[in-house]
Amino acid sequence: MAKDLVFGIDIGGQSAKYGIVNMAGEVLAQNKWETAVPPTDAQVYIDTLAKALKDLLVKSGINSERIHGIGVGAPNGNYYHGVIECAPNLPWAHTRVEFAKMLEEATGFPVKLTNDANAAALGEMKYGVAQGMRDFIMITLGTGVGSGIVIGGQMVYGHDGFAGELGHTVAVPGGRPCGCGKKGCLEAYCSAIGVARTAREWLEESKEPSVLRDVPKITSKDVYDAAKKGDALALRVFEFTGRLLGTKLADFIAFSAPEAIVLFGGLAHARDFLTKPIVEAMNEEVLPLWKGKVKLLYSALPEADAAILGASALGWEA
Amino acid sequence: MAKDLVFGIDIGGQSAKYGIVNMAGEVLAQNKWETAVPPTDAQVYIDTLAKALKDLLVKSGINSERIHGIGVGAPNGNYYHGVIECAPNLPWAHTRVEFAKMLEEATGFPVKLTNDANAAALGEMKYGVAQGMRDFIMITLGTGVGSGIVIGGQMVYGHDGFAGELGHTVAVPGGRPCGCGKKGCLEAYCSAIGVARTAREWLEESKEPSVLRDVPKITSKDVYDAAKKGDALALRVFEFTGRLLGTKLADFIAFSAPEAIVLFGGLAHARDFLTKPIVEAMNEEVLPLWKGKVKLLYSALPEADAAILGASALGWEA
Repeated sequence: MAKDLVFGIDIGGQSAKYGIVNMAGEVLAQNKWETAVPPTDAQVYIDTLAKALKDLLVKSGINSERIHGIGVGAPNGNYYHGVIECAPNLPWAHTRVEFAKMLEEATGFPVKLTNDANAAALGEMKYGVAQGMRDFIMITLGTGVGSGIVIGGQMVYGHDGFAGELGHTVAVPGGRPCGCGKKGCLEAYCSAIGVARTAREWLEESKEPSVLRDVPKITSKDVYDAAKKGDALALRVFEFTGRLLGTKLADFIAFSAPEAIVLFGGLAHARDFLTKPIVEAMNEEVLPLWKGKVKLLYSALPEADAAILGASALGWEA
Repeated sequence: MAKDLVFGIDIGGQSAKYGIVNMAGEVLAQNKWETAVPPTDAQVYIDTLAKALKDLLVKSGINSERIHGIGVGAPNGNYYHGVIECAPNLPWAHTRVEFAKMLEEATGFPVKLTNDANAAALGEMKYGVAQGMRDFIMITLGTGVGSGIVIGGQMVYGHDGFAGELGHTVAVPGGRPCGCGKKGCLEAYCSAIGVARTAREWLEESKEPSVLRDVPKITSKDVYDAAKKGDALALRVFEFTGRLLGTKLADFIAFSAPEAIVLFGGLAHARDFLTKPIVEAMNEEVLPLWKGKVKLLYSALPEADAAILGASALGWEA
C-alpha cells in the first residue's frame, strides 16, 4: 500500500494538536488533546499521545499502512537528535527527552522533530504564502517570539540543531528581563505577553486616560480591543511594538537577505495596527539596497490546520 | 592539459592583489597592483587588470591552458549576477558594473565574483581554521566590518546575493552615524575607523591623561600601540569595542547556531586586548544553551596570501 499520508503533531504547553495529512496538504482528520495538568513523566505523555494517534486512525477508517511517518513541532525540539530539551512550558521535558525515539517505539512509525517555529516555516513553504520561496524568515508572534529561517530552500538548523532563536536577540540593550534570563530580548517586547506588559507599564507611568484602566489583568487581547475602539494609549503600544519589531527585522535582513518576512501567530491578528510601524521602521533601518524590497507577509494557512500542517511537512522527511 | 590552477583576485579601493593558486591552496605566483588614483572608467580598470593577469602567467611561465577560472572578491560584489554595485570605495564602480562578464571577455577565462568578506570565509573554509566546518560566521574587522556566513557547508548569498551584511546591524540604537546612512551600526564602532573614533571621542569628553593626547591624527594602530604601553584609556577602548562585538556575536549565534566565529582583518591583530571582552560579553549575552560552546577563532592564513586564497576558492566554481 502506498505510504501517502503523514501525521502532523503540534505540541504545546497544555495541548497537543494532531492530524492526518495527505500530499496535497489536506488535513483528512484531526483532533486536539487538552491537558490542564500535563503528566510530568515523558513516557506517560508519549504513551497517551501514541494511543491518541491510533484512535484517530481507527475513528477515521484510515489504514495505518498508509502512514509514511510522523512530523512533530515542539518547543525546544531538536531536529538532529530528535530530543526535546529543557522546555520550560512542558513539565515532562524539563530535562532531556528522547522524544523522536520514544514516539517511534510507541507507534511503530518513523518520527522527525523540530521546534514549533521551524515547523511553522516548513508548513508555510510547502502549503502557505512562502510556496516556491527559497529565502524567507518566519517570525511567530505568540506567547513568545519564535523564528524559522529558510535559506536557499533549506531550513536552517545550525551546528547543533537550535538555530533560529531570533526572539532572543536584543531589541532594547539593558531592557526588560526576559524569561530566558537575558535582558531586552525581542520576545520580552514583541510577544503577546510583551504587548500586555508594555501597556501595563505605560499605564503605571502616566495618568493618561485609557479604557485599559478598567481592565483588571490586561492581556494582549485587551490591548487589541482597546486599539480597535481608538484608545490612544493602546494604539501607541502597537506603534511601539511594531517599530521595535521592524527595526530588528532590518537586522535579520542584513543576515540572510530574504525575499520575505512571514508573520504568524496570535499577535499577528493585530496586523491592522502592526503593519504600518513594522514596514516603516524596517525600511528606515535596513541598508539602502534593501529599502522597499523585502516583502512583509502574513501567514494565510487556515488557523486550525496551520500548526498540524507545519509539523506534517516534516513527516515526509521521517 | 588539466585545468588545475585558478586565479584569485582581491579588489580593494587602491589596490588589487592577484595570484595563481593550485588545488592544495599554494599560491604559485602573485603580484599587487597599486593605484593611488584608480581609473574612474570600469573598462579601463578591467583591461588593466586583464593585462596584469596575463603578465603574471608569462612571468611565472605558467601555461594559460591550466587556468580553470578566476575567483574575485570585491566590495559589494554580487555572486548571482557577477556585478559590483554602488561600491563607495571603488571610483570605477559607483553605479553598476557587469564585472564578471567584462573580465571574462577581457581574459577569456570564466569568472565568479562575490564580496570580499564572503571570499575570506570561503578561503577559511577551504584552507584555514574553518576547514571541515559546516557552520561558521566570518567577521572581517578592517576599515569596515564585513561578514561571510556559512550554513550547512554552503555560503549564504540570500535572495539577492547580498546576504551577510552584519557590519550594518545595530550595535548602539540611535548611536553614531555610519557610512551607510544608518545610525549605530556595528561597523561604526568595531572597525579600525570605529576604534580610532571611540578614542578621539573619549579624549574629548574627559581630561584623563593618555599617551594618545600627543598623537595628532589618531588611528586604530595608535590606539593599539598605546594599549601595548598599558595606556588605561586605550585599554578601555578595546574593552568597550570587544564587549560591543561580543554582544552582537551573541545575536548572530541565535540566528545560525554556528560552531565557531572566525575573526579576520587588521583589527584582529589586537586580539590580545579584544579576546577577553569579546568572549565574556558573548557568553553573557547568548542563550544558556550556547554558553561556553561557540568557539572564537582567529584566521591563521598567511597574511599576504589570505585575500588571494579566499578569492581563488571561488575560482573553482567558475
